Amino acid sequence: MNPYIAEFIGTGILLLLGSGVVANVILPGTKGNGGGLMAITTAWALAVFCGVVIAGPSSGAHLNPAVTIGLGIAGKFDWAMAPGYIFAQIGGAMLGSGLAWLMYRHHFDLAEDPGLKRAPFCTDPAIRNFPTSVISEAIGTFVLIFVILYITGAKLEDANSTPIGLGSVGALPVAFLVWVIGLALGGTTGYAINPARDLGPRIMHQLLPIKGKGSSDWEYSWVPVLGPIIGAALAAVLYLSVGL
Amino acid sequence: MNPYIAEFIGTGILLLLGSGVVANVILPGTKGNGGGLMAITTAWALAVFCGVVIAGPSSGAHLNPAVTIGLGIAGKFDWAMAPGYIFAQIGGAMLGSGLAWLMYRHHFDLAEDPGLKRAPFCTDPAIRNFPTSVISEAIGTFVLIFVILYITGAKLEDANSTPIGLGSVGALPVAFLVWVIGLALGGTTGYAINPARDLGPRIMHQLLPIKGKGSSDWEYSWVPVLGPIIGAALAAVLYLSVGL
Amino acid sequence: MNPYIAEFIGTGILLLLGSGVVANVILPGTKGNGGGLMAITTAWALAVFCGVVIAGPSSGAHLNPAVTIGLGIAGKFDWAMAPGYIFAQIGGAMLGSGLAWLMYRHHFDLAEDPGLKRAPFCTDPAIRNFPTSVISEAIGTFVLIFVILYITGAKLEDANSTPIGLGSVGALPVAFLVWVIGLALGGTTGYAINPARDLGPRIMHQLLPIKGKGSSDWEYSWVPVLGPIIGAALAAVLYLSVGL
Amino acid sequence: MNPYIAEFIGTGILLLLGSGVVANVILPGTKGNGGGLMAITTAWALAVFCGVVIAGPSSGAHLNPAVTIGLGIAGKFDWAMAPGYIFAQIGGAMLGSGLAWLMYRHHFDLAEDPGLKRAPFCTDPAIRNFPTSVISEAIGTFVLIFVILYITGAKLEDANSTPIGLGSVGALPVAFLVWVIGLALGGTTGYAINPARDLGPRIMHQLLPIKGKGSSDWEYSWVPVLGPIIGAALAAVLYLSVGL
Repeated sequence: MNPYIAEFIGTGILLLLGSGVVANVILPGTKGNGGGLMAITTAWALAVFCGVVIAGPSSGAHLNPAVTIGLGIAGKFDWAMAPGYIFAQIGGAMLGSGLAWLMYRHHFDLAEDPGLKRAPFCTDPAIRNFPTSVISEAIGTFVLIFVILYITGAKLEDANSTPIGLGSVGALPVAFLVWVIGLALGGTTGYAINPARDLGPRIMHQLLPIKGKGSSDWEYSWVPVLGPIIGAALAAVLYLSVGL
Repeated sequence: MNPYIAEFIGTGILLLLGSGVVANVILPGTKGNGGGLMAITTAWALAVFCGVVIAGPSSGAHLNPAVTIGLGIAGKFDWAMAPGYIFAQIGGAMLGSGLAWLMYRHHFDLAEDPGLKRAPFCTDPAIRNFPTSVISEAIGTFVLIFVILYITGAKLEDANSTPIGLGSVGALPVAFLVWVIGLALGGTTGYAINPARDLGPRIMHQLLPIKGKGSSDWEYSWVPVLGPIIGAALAAVLYLSVGL
Repeated sequence: MNPYIAEFIGTGILLLLGSGVVANVILPGTKGNGGGLMAITTAWALAVFCGVVIAGPSSGAHLNPAVTIGLGIAGKFDWAMAPGYIFAQIGGAMLGSGLAWLMYRHHFDLAEDPGLKRAPFCTDPAIRNFPTSVISEAIGTFVLIFVILYITGAKLEDANSTPIGLGSVGALPVAFLVWVIGLALGGTTGYAINPARDLGPRIMHQLLPIKGKGSSDWEYSWVPVLGPIIGAALAAVLYLSVGL
Repeated sequence: MNPYIAEFIGTGILLLLGSGVVANVILPGTKGNGGGLMAITTAWALAVFCGVVIAGPSSGAHLNPAVTIGLGIAGKFDWAMAPGYIFAQIGGAMLGSGLAWLMYRHHFDLAEDPGLKRAPFCTDPAIRNFPTSVISEAIGTFVLIFVILYITGAKLEDANSTPIGLGSVGALPVAFLVWVIGLALGGTTGYAINPARDLGPRIMHQLLPIKGKGSSDWEYSWVPVLGPIIGAALAAVLYLSVGL
């Protein structure tokens, strides 16, 4: 598969499933209403798993500009491809969240609170304090990128000694990583930890004809872009300092 | 094992476990009553895992006409075997859901709502809108088949470079896929994503002498047949377009 | 390790963890009180995982007379060792549940209902109907043994083509199998699916000086012995009929 | 990576995630408030997974003085490195829990109960009885170290026959082990099972300017140090007695 198409489709599946689980758990009248923290974090983790299975062999399955930037700084990715990757990621995220809305749109209609109608698209801090939210997103993304660098590094080391036969089982560690970040570091801002995952669907929320929707909260929109980039850069720098 | 027997037994185990968990979680007086979304989705995922472990080496473990059709369109399955596969899948699904009823029949008797007595057998939309339900089932099955094609593809690629030693661990990725579909895309229709899984047990619900049962809701029965077939076809076509 | 010691220690760890999670979830004042179906079934599954990691290389990690009998009928285990295995399993189960009581004994003291004090030791049907309970235990154990035979069979087939490098990851499929049995087929009798797991701790409940304990419910005690043996035999016979 | 730095960073990530999930689940106003037993135990398990992925290749990923001592007694670790390992573990635990506080500090401010403000840092028994708490911590750590010795042993045995290709998937068994210990054996004391995990953050709780914090409960602090050391020693001795 073309790597840009892989990023587009992979991020699309990620957001279809990620927006989907939020819709299922928080919108009224769904089968999963009230499913709770475990349901949401498990699904986001496995959504990443699916994206990695699809896009991994073709594009390395970044699915996240913070991953692209982090791998770039760590010297594991050609910067020339970064703009195309990031563009594809944002586009895929828009498509995926739009499909989730299409699927759950009668339940969106049932919701009365505009906040509920926005939540399947983009993140919202529990306490509105921009510097703290930037720190939270930076810490969450730092853990994401730092551990990914060791997961990737371990694979590269194995490369000559045959990392064979794992197939898509090899995509599980990243899913487990995202699971724990959601459980442990998602409590303050809802763990965007991915600029495309937040920005793409926020644009989509702005564009779609969602009945009774409120603001797309653009004042907050820079936080889940800047925080993850800071976290990714710190992770790459620390990785380069301490080595594998 | 004969591949048709493998499909029969594998789908039987799938439905025994799948109908079983729904019975356990929703019927009155069980040990698992009120177990919630995570319990149901985890069990359906692992039910697929068990079916794949049993039938995988013999039949490829389709356990689902949508998989059979999707692989057929993608050129990975001989169409001549499709009718036998689908027949075996529906038969297995009937047997499995019948065994679950046998096991939980005193709890079926305790339930007063006919809807509760039907739910362990077949799916029911949260909001009754046939076109939306078809779209929901199509999207859910699209994700199922599309990701399976990459899981399978990855295995085939590894085939020459020794996909060894994974044994039944290799059946986990499909389980994780089904888990996230349940969590994220099951909120509208209860994710049949498998015509045999819905139709077989619906026939069984019609046939079995369940005390106080209501209608088998045949008006809805075509939705979880048509939706998954559309989704599977779209997945196969996209897979053929974008490649591995 | 000596295989009998392996069965003893492995089943001991299984029951320490299994009785432990039930105590944690149902006894008053614990950190996990009210943890629910997912907590109990997840822990029992992973308890099997730990037992298999310890005993697998030495004894094959039966940890369950029904496994011993099922593998015996399937021709995969030497009957001469069966009595020693079963004796070790029951002894280990006694020790493990005794340790769990030692650890949680102040919480046992806090409980007022004698049923709560017995539940961490042995199973109890949701609805008291002996034939149905036998059927339930037989179905649950049938699934356990039948799927294990395919998990084991798959490993044996791989044996010449190097089932290497999995280490303890290879013990996961059995854990996933036990997880789904608990979720799907545990709702009627609490899924003993193992005569030693029920009988050993029941003896321990009789022997231990538990304050305010009630009857050890010996009238029911034959059900989780007979049911699993029937289920194991049926699984082995079906396996021999249909083949791998 | 330098092994001491690996222990420092690995234990830091462990506590950032571990303290983080407790903060998320118990502090007021977070996204995960009320997430329950499954959320906490899953996250701690996966936090260990992340620590092992990072530190495994460099230091063996002890992340826990009880592991260091247990492996030392079992003859699998050079005692001369033990003081440096333990020092790094405690330091890392301090840093990690401090970062979690930084991230969740507005939610710490919202909490009124000083016990809630201490809980993300260090453990607290459900029932205050020091001998029983020592026994609980010893039993939990015994299971941790004993099973780890078999996980490690299995890997060593495979070493000549190519434990290849698992990469970070190989870190999963320890995570599953920690998961079940939390579910089954965490109900009495909150399963420190790691002197550094409790002592380091307790020091941090003493040092940090947390608004309205109460005592750091130093009277209890020796229990989660002594108990785990006893358990680790017993596990190593039993392992040496019974063999692999």
